[in-house]
Amino acid sequence: MTGTLYGLGIGPGDPELITLKALKLLQSTQVLAYPALEEGDSLARAIVAPHLNGHKTEIAIRIPMTVAREPAQVAYDLAAKELGEHLKQGEDVVVLCEGDPFFYGSFMYLFGRIAEDFPVEVVPGVSSLTACATALQSPLSARNDILTVLPAPLDSRILKERLRETDSAAIMKVGRHFARVREVIDEMGLMENARYIERATMENEKILPLSDVPPDAAPYFSMILIHKRGQAWK
Amino acid sequence: MTGTLYGLGIGPGDPELITLKALKLLQSTQVLAYPALEEGDSLARAIVAPHLNGHKTEIAIRIPMTVAREPAQVAYDLAAKELGEHLKQGEDVVVLCEGDPFFYGSFMYLFGRIAEDFPVEVVPGVSSLTACATALQSPLSARNDILTVLPAPLDSRILKERLRETDSAAIMKVGRHFARVREVIDEMGLMENARYIERATMENEKILPLSDVPPDAAPYFSMILIHKRGQAWK
Repeated sequence: MTGTLYGLGIGPGDPELITLKALKLLQSTQVLAYPALEEGDSLARAIVAPHLNGHKTEIAIRIPMTVAREPAQVAYDLAAKELGEHLKQGEDVVVLCEGDPFFYGSFMYLFGRIAEDFPVEVVPGVSSLTACATALQSPLSARNDILTVLPAPLDSRILKERLRETDSAAIMKVGRHFARVREVIDEMGLMENARYIERATMENEKILPLSDVPPDAAPYFSMILIHKRGQAWK
Repeated sequence: MTGTLYGLGIGPGDPELITLKALKLLQSTQVLAYPALEEGDSLARAIVAPHLNGHKTEIAIRIPMTVAREPAQVAYDLAAKELGEHLKQGEDVVVLCEGDPFFYGSFMYLFGRIAEDFPVEVVPGVSSLTACATALQSPLSARNDILTVLPAPLDSRILKERLRETDSAAIMKVGRHFARVREVIDEMGLMENARYIERATMENEKILPLSDVPPDAAPYFSMILIHKRGQAWK
């Protein structure tokens, strides 16, 4: 009998936003894997730290954050092999995933490498998308609104076209694209509709009108939400 | 001191997909409100039933499911007034919300009526969106994919335009629009990329290629997910 790989959505940051299902699997499984920076800590592990019970075998999956994709692919190949060794021996393995594993999550790279050979079960989690809406105290989308999720690395031309044709938008993976994305939004006259959220649901959560965030900011765990219709739910 | 209204995301259906935060508020609050059919049961209450502890004051919010908006608005006005009476007396009130309160949730109608007069706190939940992706065992969106969420009642012309310009799409609120939406997807040559999910994470969950669902089906708690790129995560 081989083990099962569990991809656990652990939510956006507040340790209390883990689901009961993920919590039980976390506490009952002996092998615990999580993404981590090349050097340093794992945010995912920090999120679940209050829930950890006793000693586990821990595997930090360290993925190089390079623009080139190959170094990351090699790292995922190695990680899949390491997790596979445990699964082969009949040990279950949980992999922690910030937010939801299948919503722009890096878990999919392990999933793609492991699901053909071993049973994989995914537990959905609270995504950064709805966590950010909660932080803003404002519905993401109402009634027949179209909601578009846009990764910031897309071309400015594509971002503009898609922003033009949606009611609400969430711009993800802002990072080093911040200044350009901010300019796109400004050029489209959407600054008043745009809010910036950093570290939603975490202790140091920060919310600002986008216009108050300087173009040279270096955002971290951030998202921009745009509501064209204002308070459509009233 | 007035009470606080808590909008609790209770997840997509599996009672274990409630968050710890929502569970604690559910169990520590005396007044429990939830949406219900005009006659009959409340799905939201059924989802949390295994977690209910002891006697609570229960308020079923019965909203008429008419195409005209006015009867529902009147019902929300009345419900807001009833909850407001408890809040005025300093009692906290939890309102159960299937999925996530701010992701196309009807909670926003209560929120819009109550948040100006009383403190409101929203707890995000696992949305139907990511629950459906989990049910399909396939990532919703990867890398720089554009993900578009489309309510089925939109005009066929708009649905087509938006489907043309996205990598992944989730079509919500399918209900009585099913036959038309199915035809739109067929006309666009996207049948092979489309899957149908009913009651995701519930005991009677059902997943089918869209082409296997007859046009005269009467879907219930269902969503259609479309991935144009196939397995982009590999």
